[in-house]
Amino acid sequence: MFSSPLNIADKTFQSRLFTGTGKFPSSANMQEALLASGSELVTVALKRVDLAEEQDDILRHLSHPQFHLLPNTSGVRTAKEAIFAAQLAREALETNWLKLEIHPDPKYLLPDPIETLKAAEELVKLGFVVLPYIHADPVLCKHLEEVGTAAVMPLGAPIGSNKGLRTRDFLEIIIEQSRVPVIVDAGIGAPSHAAEAMELGADAVLVNTAIAVSEDPVKMALAFRLAVEAGRMAYEAKLAQPRTFAEASSPLTAFLEEDHV
Amino acid sequence: MFSSPLNIADKTFQSRLFTGTGKFPSSANMQEALLASGSELVTVALKRVDLAEEQDDILRHLSHPQFHLLPNTSGVRTAKEAIFAAQLAREALETNWLKLEIHPDPKYLLPDPIETLKAAEELVKLGFVVLPYIHADPVLCKHLEEVGTAAVMPLGAPIGSNKGLRTRDFLEIIIEQSRVPVIVDAGIGAPSHAAEAMELGADAVLVNTAIAVSEDPVKMALAFRLAVEAGRMAYEAKLAQPRTFAEASSPLTAFLEEDHV
Amino acid sequence: MFSSPLNIADKTFQSRLFTGTGKFPSSANMQEALLASGSELVTVALKRVDLAEEQDDILRHLSHPQFHLLPNTSGVRTAKEAIFAAQLAREALETNWLKLEIHPDPKYLLPDPIETLKAAEELVKLGFVVLPYIHADPVLCKHLEEVGTAAVMPLGAPIGSNKGLRTRDFLEIIIEQSRVPVIVDAGIGAPSHAAEAMELGADAVLVNTAIAVSEDPVKMALAFRLAVEAGRMAYEAKLAQPRTFAEASSPLTAFLEEDHV
Amino acid sequence: MFSSPLNIADKTFQSRLFTGTGKFPSSANMQEALLASGSELVTVALKRVDLAEEQDDILRHLSHPQFHLLPNTSGVRTAKEAIFAAQLAREALETNWLKLEIHPDPKYLLPDPIETLKAAEELVKLGFVVLPYIHADPVLCKHLEEVGTAAVMPLGAPIGSNKGLRTRDFLEIIIEQSRVPVIVDAGIGAPSHAAEAMELGADAVLVNTAIAVSEDPVKMALAFRLAVEAGRMAYEAKLAQPRTFAEASSPLTAFLEEDHV
Repeated sequence: MFSSPLNIADKTFQSRLFTGTGKFPSSANMQEALLASGSELVTVALKRVDLAEEQDDILRHLSHPQFHLLPNTSGVRTAKEAIFAAQLAREALETNWLKLEIHPDPKYLLPDPIETLKAAEELVKLGFVVLPYIHADPVLCKHLEEVGTAAVMPLGAPIGSNKGLRTRDFLEIIIEQSRVPVIVDAGIGAPSHAAEAMELGADAVLVNTAIAVSEDPVKMALAFRLAVEAGRMAYEAKLAQPRTFAEASSPLTAFLEEDHV
Repeated sequence: MFSSPLNIADKTFQSRLFTGTGKFPSSANMQEALLASGSELVTVALKRVDLAEEQDDILRHLSHPQFHLLPNTSGVRTAKEAIFAAQLAREALETNWLKLEIHPDPKYLLPDPIETLKAAEELVKLGFVVLPYIHADPVLCKHLEEVGTAAVMPLGAPIGSNKGLRTRDFLEIIIEQSRVPVIVDAGIGAPSHAAEAMELGADAVLVNTAIAVSEDPVKMALAFRLAVEAGRMAYEAKLAQPRTFAEASSPLTAFLEEDHV
Repeated sequence: MFSSPLNIADKTFQSRLFTGTGKFPSSANMQEALLASGSELVTVALKRVDLAEEQDDILRHLSHPQFHLLPNTSGVRTAKEAIFAAQLAREALETNWLKLEIHPDPKYLLPDPIETLKAAEELVKLGFVVLPYIHADPVLCKHLEEVGTAAVMPLGAPIGSNKGLRTRDFLEIIIEQSRVPVIVDAGIGAPSHAAEAMELGADAVLVNTAIAVSEDPVKMALAFRLAVEAGRMAYEAKLAQPRTFAEASSPLTAFLEEDHV
Repeated sequence: MFSSPLNIADKTFQSRLFTGTGKFPSSANMQEALLASGSELVTVALKRVDLAEEQDDILRHLSHPQFHLLPNTSGVRTAKEAIFAAQLAREALETNWLKLEIHPDPKYLLPDPIETLKAAEELVKLGFVVLPYIHADPVLCKHLEEVGTAAVMPLGAPIGSNKGLRTRDFLEIIIEQSRVPVIVDAGIGAPSHAAEAMELGADAVLVNTAIAVSEDPVKMALAFRLAVEAGRMAYEAKLAQPRTFAEASSPLTAFLEEDHV
């Protein structure tokens, strides 16, 4: 549309809305929604695709020139498992892009900072374009940038919680300090949350649950597309700051005491 | 675009973004931004136009088939002054639509509930289509509806503060209870705020300062247009609720322990 | 304890925690909790006491030198009903103090600004010391002050919601502008909320549900007593403002590079 | 006072308010404020005391039976520096308790998760009682617990920011999952923030800036003492949950239509 494109590693994206593929009512509905979203980077859980089966239903529906695949390692609990999964994914899906997710905790699925950094360092050496999913921890983001990740993906709130930017104070610091793109991942439950992330200066957002579980995923995908675009344009056009004292948009004059009365 | 139209009194609006005309760098810039916003209802302060002068600069730039004018009574402090101003406006601008604003306090410009209700009742009897700007007070909204206002315009935060939906808990009650359209007015400082209001089920929003004072009002106007559309579509497609416990969008299975390993 | 006393009309209070009497497990438990709270002003719903019965159970348990009674008009829907109820209360309970509550809506029990102002004006003329429960509407507060109410009692959130200071932005304006004591009423669900109200500069808070429905009302009453005292002392000792940039409480010096290494 | 005591490692504390020693107007004022706070654990930056000088002014004012010293490693940037500093502290201050702080970033002083875990593991082996200052990262907290730290000290907001519990969603998860005491450190700028942390179930809070820089540190120390006690008692007495629908504390009956009228 009207905002500037985004570069990550060797690719350029017109859309700053990245999407996931879980929880849709059907693969056909997923395809329609993701096309409507305008998303060009689509993450897919390695464990959910049948790597042995060329005609895997999900992959078949993602085989479209609009989409780049971003395999993720969801389900692994250690750096070692992640590296193994990454290699499987590269071979099967023919891409060296990887969303690195390591979450040992099955309840909140929060990412492990220690194992993630360890895996990231190794995967970069192995030639992967690594996009790590992490807590909104500015110091960890700097470590990841230093070992060569292509971006950082801090969370806004626990995955699937739809709570929005609960980590806002820390996202602002990450955005201020980062020299690689910042993609807000997890917790984005409404288009307003996505717009807010973009207004803060995030480079992109990743949305899955909020689109997939709505009553009309195609319409919701379009809503997110517009919201991300809106937030980015607002960031580029620069927002006014909040003010404690109000100031009328119509400057106050007691006009009735003047010439009209 | 893709969301449902809005009816107020005898008019139908495709756009749910209403706009104001104060604080723009120039009338030409105002015109360009408001056209880009898609707004079909534009409020103009009676005191800022020169009623005696047919070629008033602001009015001339609003003379376009996209725009309906919504004169406002900004600057008056009592019901009596408001009624007088309304009659002047009707005569001069040839519309019986009126944004009723009565704010005796020059610092925060907060609306007066007592004088507003009194004026609204009288103006409805005088044949005006009354849209009152008020505090987010659900009981006051019911009173206004009962005397026949065409909509209610509760504030999100003090006018010009850009703080967003600080009255969110009360807006939700107003939206639940109202039988006339609810237009969130004042405090909306970013596209994400506008989207949030629409997601809650507001029928429209009114934005002025946030567009007019940005570095690029035309781009910001377009951002708000998209955000309002996004929020409305999300409302229609139904958002998922926030959850305390996270649930992975990729259902967790320890896939590495399974057949792939 | 250690903070300054509060004057309202002709009375001086050492405690800035006002309390209600509904929802306690028993009258005996209510008495014990209210004594523990240190509260000197206790509101009682006229409809809940048996005015004809001298030995009414609630009133008997409130007959203690620590407590002043503050009858309230909870349950009335109009100014006329409120005035009638007030006169009954004055006669039966032998006090001209009155918490004026008018809420026509049975779901959220939000106060009616129009009827409340009308009743307040009349009740002041009739010699009552009027403390009106109202929305956090700064303009309405000024109107009430002008007709002579002894205080204003804006809500923090819908009554019984326990949500805390959702109206914080407006409470700050009310506190800044008011020349009569500001008592935050309704919505206070935790000692931290009460402390926050006092830190903002509120003169007192009124708490009922949060004490009465806890598992241990006596302990919770004591918790609120300490929190109100803490908030008031912090207000008097002046809090530091929030800062965007952190500053270490231990000034940073790379001491290891110095003489110790 | 009235709430339960706290055990950490081999010590029992009556007070759940831990304090810092930076930024006070004078050592005498610091001493008076810390005594008033009731605090029994007082952190002191190694770099700020003159280890070679027995009569160091700060240490002399902390030599009181109420206080246990908790040396901190503020100013170090790596695990290696932290271990060296810890050993110096143990020798000089004759305690094996240690607040482990590693923050490479001089602007926000945010803690380094990688270096902190590495240092914690080593220091536990060296016989230290380790209390690490960290981001509110639940997975990191579990790692630290597993290597044997005596507590975890997640931050509420950037140190010195006074912003309160911006990490609340994550603190709740940490408190739910932790088997060692959780001490909320950094960001607590008001007694209401301290009370909120305790209400969530935190075991203690550490406060420094908010006390030291107020206009009256002694009064503010007392305010925090009461607020921490209030929050803990409320946690023990159990708070009611927030509700969407209000419920009157005075059950509504249209009493005026009944026998009284």
